[in-house]
Amino acid sequence: MSNAKVLPLLAPEVAAEPCCPPLDERPLSAEEAERAAKMFKALGDPVRLRLFSAVASHEGGEACVCDISDVGVSQPTVSHHLKKLKEAGLLSSERRGTWVYYRVEPAVIAAMGQLLTRAAAA
Amino acid sequence: MSNAKVLPLLAPEVAAEPCCPPLDERPLSAEEAERAAKMFKALGDPVRLRLFSAVASHEGGEACVCDISDVGVSQPTVSHHLKKLKEAGLLSSERRGTWVYYRVEPAVIAAMGQLLTRAAAA
Repeated sequence: MSNAKVLPLLAPEVAAEPCCPPLDERPLSAEEAERAAKMFKALGDPVRLRLFSAVASHEGGEACVCDISDVGVSQPTVSHHLKKLKEAGLLSSERRGTWVYYRVEPAVIAAMGQLLTRAAAA
Repeated sequence: MSNAKVLPLLAPEVAAEPCCPPLDERPLSAEEAERAAKMFKALGDPVRLRLFSAVASHEGGEACVCDISDVGVSQPTVSHHLKKLKEAGLLSSERRGTWVYYRVEPAVIAAMGQLLTRAAAA
């Protein structure tokens, strides 16, 4: 339990998920758009975005609910939003003793970043 | 009208909108999260995402409705979604003769990309 800190934020075995090309490379197919829209939708709520940012910026890229509940909503609402983020693949979770710890899924963030990276900057 | 092509995709006078820091830098404030969530929400729908991608990948980074209507929904639905993308600041539009042309707002895309760029890669 106390060795949680040795987990690297960007685990080398995590391959970047090849969801979709940059949005300006070619029109997305219906299937690609379904997948990518799910990820964007998960971050399309201010409370979820704050919770995600709280986890992502927490020491070691992970946090327990006890660390990130100061976003002005009730504990059940926090749990609800964390569950949505998990379902979208943006967070993973692990129970350790009393608390559930949430971690950012770096491959998914990389995939989203790639969508917004312009194919050519000029 | 025929000089539309000389408009650069990334106009140099467009400054990157300083919305928010990368999501893993520090927890977003409520105000930052409100702004950023709006942008993510706009892309959180598969049809909107396909339309956005169709505009972004079209020649010159702009397209008229006549170019991008093959996403399997009715013309009024296309117009509705394009309006939502405009309201979120992701597209701008301009009427030229019969058609309305849509363009990607590079500063907004840059701001979204920045949110998903990891502050430190290791």
